[in-house]
Amino acid sequence: VRAVLLAHDKFGPFSSKTATCILRYPRTYETVAVIDRSKAGRRADEFVGEVGRGIPVVGHLREALALRPQVLVIGIAPIGGALPPEWRPELRLALESGLEIHSGLHFFLGDDPELARLAQEAGRRIWDVRRPERPPRIATGEGRGAAPLVVHTMGSDCNSGQMTATVALVEEAKRRGIGAAFAATGQTGILIGCDAGAPIDRVVSDFVAGAAEELVLQCAAKGFDLVAVEGQGSIAHPAYSGVTVGLMHGCFPDQVVYCHVAGRTHHSGYAEPPHEFPLLPLAEEIDLIERLLAPVSGGRVVAVSLVTLGLPEAEARRAIERVAAETGRPTTDPVRFGAGVLVDAVVEAARHSNKKGARHLSALKPAASR
Amino acid sequence: VRAVLLAHDKFGPFSSKTATCILRYPRTYETVAVIDRSKAGRRADEFVGEVGRGIPVVGHLREALALRPQVLVIGIAPIGGALPPEWRPELRLALESGLEIHSGLHFFLGDDPELARLAQEAGRRIWDVRRPERPPRIATGEGRGAAPLVVHTMGSDCNSGQMTATVALVEEAKRRGIGAAFAATGQTGILIGCDAGAPIDRVVSDFVAGAAEELVLQCAAKGFDLVAVEGQGSIAHPAYSGVTVGLMHGCFPDQVVYCHVAGRTHHSGYAEPPHEFPLLPLAEEIDLIERLLAPVSGGRVVAVSLVTLGLPEAEARRAIERVAAETGRPTTDPVRFGAGVLVDAVVEAARHSNKKGARHLSALKPAASR
Repeated sequence: VRAVLLAHDKFGPFSSKTATCILRYPRTYETVAVIDRSKAGRRADEFVGEVGRGIPVVGHLREALALRPQVLVIGIAPIGGALPPEWRPELRLALESGLEIHSGLHFFLGDDPELARLAQEAGRRIWDVRRPERPPRIATGEGRGAAPLVVHTMGSDCNSGQMTATVALVEEAKRRGIGAAFAATGQTGILIGCDAGAPIDRVVSDFVAGAAEELVLQCAAKGFDLVAVEGQGSIAHPAYSGVTVGLMHGCFPDQVVYCHVAGRTHHSGYAEPPHEFPLLPLAEEIDLIERLLAPVSGGRVVAVSLVTLGLPEAEARRAIERVAAETGRPTTDPVRFGAGVLVDAVVEAARHSNKKGARHLSALKPAASR
Repeated sequence: VRAVLLAHDKFGPFSSKTATCILRYPRTYETVAVIDRSKAGRRADEFVGEVGRGIPVVGHLREALALRPQVLVIGIAPIGGALPPEWRPELRLALESGLEIHSGLHFFLGDDPELARLAQEAGRRIWDVRRPERPPRIATGEGRGAAPLVVHTMGSDCNSGQMTATVALVEEAKRRGIGAAFAATGQTGILIGCDAGAPIDRVVSDFVAGAAEELVLQCAAKGFDLVAVEGQGSIAHPAYSGVTVGLMHGCFPDQVVYCHVAGRTHHSGYAEPPHEFPLLPLAEEIDLIERLLAPVSGGRVVAVSLVTLGLPEAEARRAIERVAAETGRPTTDPVRFGAGVLVDAVVEAARHSNKKGARHLSALKPAASR
């Protein structure tokens, strides 16, 4: 479907993750314009590189209507997830112009009386991606015995490339003939298309692990051999660690791919005194992840996915070498250099697993692809 | 207020925590009867000891109406928190008989059309304790700088005496002249009365840490020197670790009192193959807690609270000695032997803190109470 991406004041690879990923993975949406009043008249590729080529940035939805969009997607996620009041006129215009609205905000646009009425009058859907679709359930432990090999991407922070690493890993695994599923846990992953998805950070905390377990069970029922479960946040994040750890335990990972942004030292949004919160040292965090998993799934950290966006290539390669040395794990930037290193590590570690999915992986011929 | 406690089939110290704690801490409720169809005609003290003395167990609400109760409190928490259909006739009868209903279920009784209608007709309140009262907020880090010393009780499992230890610690601290607050995080603590409370496991996961932080800020605003924040679950619980860790980071503890039930080896409800999940070794869990807290609040585990219920006294003392040796922390059972050991440890550790509340604690004379 033809989409416009709303990203006022924030369009860019880190500040508008949803918009950027929709451009990078044009699976469900064909983007016709980005809306950002602070960058009107520019081109998307000036901010997000190649994936934005040919896409204009406009200052207001009305300037994009001639491009005949069918959907307005909210492409940014304000902290706290409320609806900024200044967006309302454009959302109104979207519905009045016959567009659907797809939103990952915590605040459900479909519950807003005015927008709900306009949507009904126009016969157009408001899709609140973060509204949980399934009834809440408590984790039972059943997920631990599921057939697929479960690989979980976990970060040193929010927005550390967990989703990107998950998608890249699944795509490379499929290329090698592995029956791999993408289990999305955030609004962006659900929007770009996934094999199973749940808006984990919007689930009531008691049911987070249960929702994660259900993702694995859904993918198991579909016969996948490998499920890559997108991670959220980090285990020592001052605000979101509960999401991280509940998800981590509930998906019962056999393996973890640890995700980090080269050079980041503090949690995003928590870098300024007096409320500054440093990241854990990478090797320390990897050790803690494995020890927290030991009594639950026994999962091990098998590789590191490093975001080197913005670094010149030689520096990126040096950053990768440093992180590999620091963590003792194979490391790469899957967006820049492909996910071969990650899939190699997963397949190698799967040799030690008795799971049915893992045995299928091990039976494949070694990749000639590195 | 005069209360009846609904606890069908489950009345007992571990199986009906809410009912038992309401009997143990008669702060808001004067219990006139317990309702448990499997124990009708018995006496409450046969199941929960001294705190149940003089209170009859009846098989149905109608047998308790002559005792003129004003409130029916749901005294048990079925896993998953749905409303068992067989309770409905008694809940109907309660409202028709002019009682309020206080419930800590995940399922909100006030949202049930029939019960809501009956409550309205009778002019009686349904209080859903788990319904969050405050708007969700993301943790900012502000709680770390709050004036009170924050002591957080954390367990090796759910139902490991976290609430009991918190209440006992606060009561002993007050007895010594410390301005101590009880911050409740579960339905039982909120029901028995607290200085600040939030139903943490019912909060959307993104906002768990923010809700915990707000408890500390509320108690700080009220001028307390010490805030004891009730913990939930454990950091390696297969279903609830997200609640545990989000709460742990969000309350920014200076100190942790670690809670354990003597002899327990597996998570309650997760002890049978194939879904059996062992507890972490105590010293390992304490180490992990401190390392997870290091970059967030730097909190340390200063003491262990051990539930020895059911053990003969000599065995209880031996269990306490063993745990003290295993963990290297002062250990006691605060219900059986008083919370003196815990408060001593808190006051001693507070000497190393620069927080305003901690300085007030340190200025107090040493207790003559051990």
